[in-house]
Amino acid sequence: MRRKRVAVIISGRGSNLRALIGASEKPNYPATIALIISNRPGAEGLEHGIASNIPTLVIDHERFRDAPNPKAAFEEQLNDILHANEIELVCLAGFMRLLSDDFVNSWAGRILNIHPSLLPAFRGLHVQRRTLESGVKIAGCTVHIVSSEMDAGPIIGQAALCVQPDDTIESLTERILRLEHTLYPACLAAIASGSAKLIDGAKVALECASVPISTIATPSS
Amino acid sequence: MRRKRVAVIISGRGSNLRALIGASEKPNYPATIALIISNRPGAEGLEHGIASNIPTLVIDHERFRDAPNPKAAFEEQLNDILHANEIELVCLAGFMRLLSDDFVNSWAGRILNIHPSLLPAFRGLHVQRRTLESGVKIAGCTVHIVSSEMDAGPIIGQAALCVQPDDTIESLTERILRLEHTLYPACLAAIASGSAKLIDGAKVALECASVPISTIATPSS
Repeated sequence: MRRKRVAVIISGRGSNLRALIGASEKPNYPATIALIISNRPGAEGLEHGIASNIPTLVIDHERFRDAPNPKAAFEEQLNDILHANEIELVCLAGFMRLLSDDFVNSWAGRILNIHPSLLPAFRGLHVQRRTLESGVKIAGCTVHIVSSEMDAGPIIGQAALCVQPDDTIESLTERILRLEHTLYPACLAAIASGSAKLIDGAKVALECASVPISTIATPSS
Repeated sequence: MRRKRVAVIISGRGSNLRALIGASEKPNYPATIALIISNRPGAEGLEHGIASNIPTLVIDHERFRDAPNPKAAFEEQLNDILHANEIELVCLAGFMRLLSDDFVNSWAGRILNIHPSLLPAFRGLHVQRRTLESGVKIAGCTVHIVSSEMDAGPIIGQAALCVQPDDTIESLTERILRLEHTLYPACLAAIASGSAKLIDGAKVALECASVPISTIATPSS
């Protein structure tokens, strides 16, 4: 088995990055984390890469702010680095910048993202606060292919949990994060191995139903 | 314990009505189904009422179509009958008409509805078809207080299941219905007993966390 070469792009503490690195260290995992990129110089998550001997670099988006088109300049450098490292799949893991349509289209079907809601509910920002305010009783997270519309690309997998009456933004965020750390590696494996693939350019079909792509947490009693 | 007097309003086969009747026959259930109303003369679900010796009647909305305001005329008769039967809570169970703001406001906080999605996702009609087309991996159902905005009132409870790769509209509908038959009686009990109640007029708070208000189906392997 040849492992797919994956780049993980972060902006912050990179807890999902750590989960992906952990999964990729297992012998049969179909992907290897070949590169870690942060757009923020001080991102804590960079340490996970250094600790694991994975090439780690910063592309500081602030450096491009005087360019005629800062986003395009940032993405050109990003694109060059991904190609130079023969990257096949990109995982966004708390990367807090929107990618342009041009960039997304040039990597169509090969960028994954994780979002802390059961999409299509609660697209966008401040997800856990909005989740709590809405009064929903079941929350979760979603791994999806990135498309040009924010948080709307084909869904690879979802995981759910029960909102507890005494949940705060912090406690809900923490419990959803724990689900994310299981879901993201499972979904990356499904895409990297080909057991999940795009059909009709829109849905993600799972050829192998045994992939644990819908994880559901046991409700606490 | 005095049981709350509940009217169930249906338009079709009334499978949730049957589940509510079944639950209400248990000795400690905090609500009794005191009245069954259908807006369609031929609704199969009427038989559940007859079989259970529960007063059952038809208010045919077609009879009011020549009235100056057909919806208002229908709802006036409905309202009169509910009050004449000392109804305290109303459960919509496959009732396929939208209620007016006036009617909903006059019964504010006392009308429950069940919807075959994890709201706020997939409000409106053709829910299971849209659920499948969207490619979500986790689906479910929601019991909520009816507000003047369709499928948007305070959520009492939700139940979730995993969408299977070979699910059809029919198979998904059937499995969600089975969840509904557990969720609806649990949510009616929570409201009737007062363990769930409106706070801030918007959220439903559960005083008793032991109410199984977030049922999650075990993923089939």
